[in-house]
Order: sequence, then structure tokens, then C-alpha cells
Amino acid sequence: MVETSRRREIEDAASSLFREHGYSGTSVRDIARALDIQGASLYAHVTSKQDVLWSIVERTATRFEVAADSALAGADPEPVPGPGSRLAALVRAHVGVVTDDIERASVFVHEWRSLSTERRAEMGRRRDVYEKRFRSVIADGVTAGTFAPVDPATAAAFVLTALNGIVTWYRPEGRLKPTALAEAYADLALRAVLAIEPEEAPG
Amino acid sequence: MVETSRRREIEDAASSLFREHGYSGTSVRDIARALDIQGASLYAHVTSKQDVLWSIVERTATRFEVAADSALAGADPEPVPGPGSRLAALVRAHVGVVTDDIERASVFVHEWRSLSTERRAEMGRRRDVYEKRFRSVIADGVTAGTFAPVDPATAAAFVLTALNGIVTWYRPEGRLKPTALAEAYADLALRAVLAIEPEEAPG
Repeated sequence: MVETSRRREIEDAASSLFREHGYSGTSVRDIARALDIQGASLYAHVTSKQDVLWSIVERTATRFEVAADSALAGADPEPVPGPGSRLAALVRAHVGVVTDDIERASVFVHEWRSLSTERRAEMGRRRDVYEKRFRSVIADGVTAGTFAPVDPATAAAFVLTALNGIVTWYRPEGRLKPTALAEAYADLALRAVLAIEPEEAPG
Repeated sequence: MVETSRRREIEDAASSLFREHGYSGTSVRDIARALDIQGASLYAHVTSKQDVLWSIVERTATRFEVAADSALAGADPEPVPGPGSRLAALVRAHVGVVTDDIERASVFVHEWRSLSTERRAEMGRRRDVYEKRFRSVIADGVTAGTFAPVDPATAAAFVLTALNGIVTWYRPEGRLKPTALAEAYADLALRAVLAIEPEEAPG
């Protein structure tokens, strides 16, 4: 899909409105009004509100996928990246995509269920494949004994929902910079699954 | 507010519809239809859709608050409950409320932003107070040195968004029982903040 600057402006405005009012609570007229144009002019660029949602969700999904693949390819390759480094790299990559465009990330997280049946099914499959990267890194760590004997599916859900939850509270203009957030979350996620010695268990 | 069984049925139906279609995507007529009654009859029990949302969100907030207070009061009092026990107790309590009624919990998590301005502000304050329980337990653990030197606000956000994320993926009828989920999440959340010795850091 060719992205014109007008198209980009439409998706920016729509992301902001979908985040604030939800997909159902936003009309094409609202999007047009935010851009100070007529609804009819908007239709020169998009075929429907659903089309705009799909474009936002689909592009954002691709950003997450590309970032995760690149993170796994680059994770401390010395001699072979361990599950700990790979998990930390996946977390940093995910946080980076979220903080880079928190409005689109918020729409991706909260509004993908508003996609039409077929598109929702396709996105569900892509989300499953994405989540499997986390599961399989965690399973590798459990097998190697460097991670606690957690259930990989449950631990991956725990970590990924915390990462997606960033869209609900993080303020890019606040005291915590995106890179500091990424480091803090990588530490929290990694410790959550790391094996600890029994004598260090809490009292 | 007196809860009649009819009122309870209305909130059950509304929770299910709000969860599936969002607050904006659900009409009073949809709620009436789900109960097989006329819209006009519904208004004998509720004053507006907003009133139903408020009731669901407010009651659920109270459940979370009561469960957290009771968890803190009962956390291994031997001799004084440590931050580790208190954090684990808070996590188990939160998971218990979520899994006990996942539809209402989902509405609480995703639709509280659809409350009218004043109610939204009130609920925002109550959510802040609730979150402070997590922050202060984590801050205590950091001060005591049993927890890693995490930022309490960031760590509390990480844990709480993971807990609220349960509404997006957990299936009560699946293989993972609510008590097993609560234990797994208490372990993950506790490990996420526990101090670990440097020599055990991941490779």
C-alpha cells in the first residue's frame, strides 16, 4: 500500500481518535473534522473506517514483527545468544515499537478486536506467531535450567500483557525516557523468569 | 444501591456485551434484546447505559479494594509479613477477583474510560490509591534490600498491567485453573522484583 502524506495524516488523526473514543465511538466524520476537511474528501483517500483501522493495525503488527526478528538476530551473539539475552532483546524491541508511536500501539492493542471477522482472524494468527517467539525463548531457558520451571505460555502471556499495558499509562513527555523504560522492563521481565536459588526465596 | 436479581441480570448481560462490543458499540436496545425484554421495561430498572457501566465498574473496584485489604491483613503474619509475602498476597487477591468474574473485570479494565467526566475522575483516584498498595509494598522491599533496586512506580505498573491483561487471554474453562494461575502469577511477579546475586545474572 502506497502511503501518501495525506494518508499518513488521516491515520494519525484516526489513531488519536480511536485511542481516545474507541473504534465504535469514532465516525468517519470525526476523522474528517479533526483534519478540517469534508467527509467526502476523506473518501478520496480511504474506502472506509474499517480500512483505516486495518491499515493502522497491520502496519503496527509489521513493525512489531520486524523489530522482534531484528532483535533476535542481533542479541549478543557470543558465542550463541542465551535465552536471557534473547528475552531481554525481545522486550526492548517491543517497548521500542510501543514508545515510538504510542497512539498506533494503543489502537493495535485495544482495537484489533474491532476488525472485521476475516481480518481479525488473520491478525489473531499473526499475534499467535509473534507470541510464540516469547514462548519459545522462555521454553529454551527452562530447558537449559537458567530459567525457573515456569509454564512458557503463562509466562509469555504475563510478560506480553505487561508490555502492551505500557499504552495505558506511559507518558512519552514524562520523567521516564523510552530507553530507560525499555531497560527497566527488560530487567523486570528477565528476573520474572530467571531461576533463583532456594535459599534466596523470600521470607 | 440495592441489587435486585433483575438488576443483576441486566448487569450480567451488559458486561458481556460491553466486553464483546465495547461500551460505545452497545446500545440500551442491545442489552434489552439480550434479556428478551423491551427497552422501555429496562428503564424501570436502570436510568441509562452510563448508569449500568458505573454500577459494574464501581462494584468491581470495590471488590478489588476489599480483596487487597483482606490479603494484606492476612499475609503470613509471622512475625510481621515481609514485602515478598505481601506482594504475593496482593497478586493472588487481584487474580482471584479477575477470574471470579472475568466479564465484569474486563469491563472494569477496558471501559472505565467511557465513564462520564466526573465518575472517570473519581475512578481514576480510586485506581491510584489501589496502585499505591503495590507501589508501597515494592518500595518497602527495595528499602529492606530483599527486592532489587527497581523503581516502585514502574515495577507496580508492570505487575498491575500484567494482572489486568488476564482479561484478554484467560479462559476459565481452559486447562489452567484460577488458583494455579494465581500461584503462577504470584511467582512471576515476585521474582520480577526480587534481588538476585550478581553471579547469577544471565549469560
